[in-house]
Amino acid sequence: MKISFDSQLKQYRAMINEYLESVEFDSDDNIVARAMAYSIASGGKRIRPTIAIACADALDGDREMALAFGCAVEMIHTSTLIHDDLPCMDNDDLRRGKPSCHKKFGEAYAVLAGDALLIAAYDIIAKVEDEKKAMEFVKVLSEASGVRGVGGGQGYDIAAETTSADYDMLMKIHSGKTAALILAAARGGAIAGGERPDFFKEYALSLGLAFQIRDDILDFEGNEEKLGKRTGVDVANNKATFVTVLGMQSAKAALERETDRALESIQKLGDKGEFLRSLALHLRTRDN
Amino acid sequence: MKISFDSQLKQYRAMINEYLESVEFDSDDNIVARAMAYSIASGGKRIRPTIAIACADALDGDREMALAFGCAVEMIHTSTLIHDDLPCMDNDDLRRGKPSCHKKFGEAYAVLAGDALLIAAYDIIAKVEDEKKAMEFVKVLSEASGVRGVGGGQGYDIAAETTSADYDMLMKIHSGKTAALILAAARGGAIAGGERPDFFKEYALSLGLAFQIRDDILDFEGNEEKLGKRTGVDVANNKATFVTVLGMQSAKAALERETDRALESIQKLGDKGEFLRSLALHLRTRDN
Repeated sequence: MKISFDSQLKQYRAMINEYLESVEFDSDDNIVARAMAYSIASGGKRIRPTIAIACADALDGDREMALAFGCAVEMIHTSTLIHDDLPCMDNDDLRRGKPSCHKKFGEAYAVLAGDALLIAAYDIIAKVEDEKKAMEFVKVLSEASGVRGVGGGQGYDIAAETTSADYDMLMKIHSGKTAALILAAARGGAIAGGERPDFFKEYALSLGLAFQIRDDILDFEGNEEKLGKRTGVDVANNKATFVTVLGMQSAKAALERETDRALESIQKLGDKGEFLRSLALHLRTRDN
Repeated sequence: MKISFDSQLKQYRAMINEYLESVEFDSDDNIVARAMAYSIASGGKRIRPTIAIACADALDGDREMALAFGCAVEMIHTSTLIHDDLPCMDNDDLRRGKPSCHKKFGEAYAVLAGDALLIAAYDIIAKVEDEKKAMEFVKVLSEASGVRGVGGGQGYDIAAETTSADYDMLMKIHSGKTAALILAAARGGAIAGGERPDFFKEYALSLGLAFQIRDDILDFEGNEEKLGKRTGVDVANNKATFVTVLGMQSAKAALERETDRALESIQKLGDKGEFLRSLALHLRTRDN
């Protein structure tokens, strides 16, 4: 029986949230563990694990393995959000409408919780029984999360606050900050599906770019209530975004172009690609 | 030809420093990569990788593999030092006589460099060809570095600053902060030596405890010039240490007892255990 995109999306999210809630970081007297659980439970779109599972499903692959890997990626993502919110970084008091980790637990615990979530991601992979695949996951995760991936992208992001960023710099920031973990999620899904890691590479890169452009547009045109966060923050923080660098019209054209590219790249999948197609269309017009 | 303990120690350190210097984090325009290299190059005793290699050597094991794993542990250790020095943690401006990472590069880059060094440790392990051993290394590293190891220990350390810590709490702090990575190093050496991971467990736990007690004693009785850091810091920061909790006399007795235990636990190795024996004796009386 075929189910609708919305139902499938909800089903994926429910699986992901169930998995993440089942992870016990440590006993409750460990404040670091409590801070980790707080940030992991604070929701979000779970877009990265959704991509991992959907890619594996499109290949009739091992869904449980993709779920585990996707949740590892989500932990890395959550770690970067905790550290991004710190006063020395973006200094955000709110995350998804709730106090950010350091507002709730203090800065020191937020630093430690972010660190421990990076390690917790590898803890998940350490439980994958197929050692060959497990090591492929380790490689994908490390490449995406390290100084050449997320870490480097955040560094360029900081540097860009005090210089005027051009398109090349913007792509450098984006390749690390957003694209790296979305690509990692798709790679994990491909591995769990028995394919070479880069099977969904074009899809993931275009989808990641479209996702970021939409994010940047929403910071200008979005509805604060629907978004659950303030808008206009990028300009206030002198951030380099696709809207500030390209202008709104070109940013919207780029969003269309990247969505089309993502769709094209998975034509080869036929019916199996239906969820991934709907996801690209959904993200193009999302309002939160 | 038998070489002296001092020569062997120097040889190990030279191997370790050569390995660590050979790691290219990323291009020089990436400030995060520069901050990582700065902190990795800032020296230190390299005690963790030394233990990894020495344990493998005592088993006639794979020295190159132990070196790689030991350097992964050293990266995790360096990451924790960078984050420990942050203003929201111990607020230390100096590390081994040089500006700490955040004094040199700013807080944001120090946060990112610490994060990226955690990931870089797994990058090293991703290059180990034997997938079965590589996954054992991932497990050992994750267990030691996560919220149940280093991360949790640091958390208890913060909590103890505002409460009066007893011996149980001190051991909780210590088990994470120092013992976890020393045990991980010994486990890596055992794996590279073809033994079960816990082959050197008693040795590592006693050595780790002795190492920490000596550290706490030196904060009271040490020579600032030889140590390359200020003394009296623990009391000033209201830190729970073996000296503040046990008293100096009992701390010194515990140091002797743990050193003896470490020595006893490796009697089984005979001549092969000579370096490990000398190391325990050396650490007992070290003045830096």
